[in-house]
Amino acid sequence: MAYDFSPSMLQTAPQHIQIAKVLHHELEKVEKIFCDQLASDLPSVNDLCRHVERYRGKMLRPSMLLLTGLAVSGEPCDGSALQPRHLQISAVVEMIHMATLVHDDILDEAHVRRRGATINTLRGNETAVMLGDYLISNAFHLCSKVGDPKINEMLGQVTNTLCEGELVQLSHRDDLSLDEATYLEIVRRKTAALVGTCCRMGARFSGASPGVENALEQFGISLGIAFQIQDDLLDLAGDPDVVGKSLGRDLATGKMTLPVILHLADEVGMERGETLRLIEARDGLGLRSRLVEGGAVGRARQRAVDLVVSAKTQLEHLPGSSSRDLLATLADAVVDRDA
Amino acid sequence: MAYDFSPSMLQTAPQHIQIAKVLHHELEKVEKIFCDQLASDLPSVNDLCRHVERYRGKMLRPSMLLLTGLAVSGEPCDGSALQPRHLQISAVVEMIHMATLVHDDILDEAHVRRRGATINTLRGNETAVMLGDYLISNAFHLCSKVGDPKINEMLGQVTNTLCEGELVQLSHRDDLSLDEATYLEIVRRKTAALVGTCCRMGARFSGASPGVENALEQFGISLGIAFQIQDDLLDLAGDPDVVGKSLGRDLATGKMTLPVILHLADEVGMERGETLRLIEARDGLGLRSRLVEGGAVGRARQRAVDLVVSAKTQLEHLPGSSSRDLLATLADAVVDRDA
Repeated sequence: MAYDFSPSMLQTAPQHIQIAKVLHHELEKVEKIFCDQLASDLPSVNDLCRHVERYRGKMLRPSMLLLTGLAVSGEPCDGSALQPRHLQISAVVEMIHMATLVHDDILDEAHVRRRGATINTLRGNETAVMLGDYLISNAFHLCSKVGDPKINEMLGQVTNTLCEGELVQLSHRDDLSLDEATYLEIVRRKTAALVGTCCRMGARFSGASPGVENALEQFGISLGIAFQIQDDLLDLAGDPDVVGKSLGRDLATGKMTLPVILHLADEVGMERGETLRLIEARDGLGLRSRLVEGGAVGRARQRAVDLVVSAKTQLEHLPGSSSRDLLATLADAVVDRDA
Repeated sequence: MAYDFSPSMLQTAPQHIQIAKVLHHELEKVEKIFCDQLASDLPSVNDLCRHVERYRGKMLRPSMLLLTGLAVSGEPCDGSALQPRHLQISAVVEMIHMATLVHDDILDEAHVRRRGATINTLRGNETAVMLGDYLISNAFHLCSKVGDPKINEMLGQVTNTLCEGELVQLSHRDDLSLDEATYLEIVRRKTAALVGTCCRMGARFSGASPGVENALEQFGISLGIAFQIQDDLLDLAGDPDVVGKSLGRDLATGKMTLPVILHLADEVGMERGETLRLIEARDGLGLRSRLVEGGAVGRARQRAVDLVVSAKTQLEHLPGSSSRDLLATLADAVVDRDA
């Protein structure tokens, strides 16, 4: 399957098109490694994997890993400065991301992903559980083929963190008193840690100094948090035809999002009671209007924009290059996207 | 938590008591590594892990890894011949096994495990999905700390195989035409491959020759298949008070087991129609009587016994030792158990 310039990407994220064009050959190689790893001698397993490959969208995590690798080397952005492990570990992190999508769709009872039916909808939760496990297992297997146990250890550490974030989030389902600090800690673990590790590994494989590795991990973490806030906003107020996946899942599954948290933090008495009533009634349209009018949607969006600005300051640790510019472009795209 | 001589073990498996006594100190060390690895800075995650630790039963997989290690070295069975990696990887395989229990309980819609409520029952399927993922992730993380990428690769390979087995089994749900060969291939992947790898790694860490490694892997594979057949028999005809977990789940979830397959292979016409009717009606008691009377339960049991005999011939590749004798004892226990 060729790298997918999907309609949603063309509609909504010109920055991604620019990046995808530059990284086109590398992302195709990543995709080949990804597919080769998942190939089984069992046709029924291959059928499921082909379905999952349809989920592949912006390839944000591989793109960040590859671009940090290129930006650290400071060379022209043509892929020649990349090591084989940049490509292999890009496939690994995409596989982990796919596994989280398959398992998240069970958690969110989601029916649509990238305009297709989710695995849980098509084949039941049981198959979705096992397919996610198959993807996780293959990610670790592929990682071990690189032959550097330190990479396996970093990856194991970040997936531990990711699962912790999901578990803490589940323990706060329907917790209307969840505060912003706890929300940010959940998001740091469940979303941002993996993005940060992508950037750290991209830098490390290109021989970055520890200081540059740290700066780029921080770039990824800030961007990952911004990405999740934007996801929260799209789930609340996105256009389902553009986003291409089930919306309103956060409210339906009792997941507190930043706009809701910011709104509730400013309300007391009957005002607050009215918001809680909308949440408990799962009244998505009513809640959306209230959060827009009260300004919480705007403030959540501003938080994401501020995080992107903060992320971009970390790029000053790098020499000027077209890859560095693309990382900044990609950072802007995180909050500009509609899908 | 001390190693658990549970009532069910005392009632049903004298061989396991013998093995547990000999390996007592090593299994306690394995348990400590297991618990230390799962320790999180998040109390809610630790609560869940404490619940899962209650699932720990016979520690079959660590016991096999440790005993093969001791038997290869041919030394007195006191643990002095073991390497640190024997203990670390024992904790890893037990963690993988725990992950499969947590995810299997979702697939089987099981409510009871080791006399306690399952995670899916207590906290919902969502938490069970993520807790299983947390266990898988920690297993790979712990494995990578040993620092030998070859071990990570072997482990990733076997968990790929395990997931494939589960996925193929799911694709044959309610498939009344499933034949014995396909059944055995599913079981080889989903259960036996991990047991085989335990024995292979135990032998390898003790410096076994490739021939002995292969023989011991085959020992584990044969035993793993026998173990699964015995599990099938217990799910069909076990005493729930002794087994301590939800029974009748195979029939309820459309999973074909060896007694059913053997029985159907001998029937035609109205006779077969009556068996199919019992299966479709999920009539556990009726099916159980029919399979006992028709001899299929006895024949399935004989298959398991034959596999144990075949497994034990592989032990002839080892020098005589008390550890080798204990491996033979453990093999017998696989088909003698009632729980």
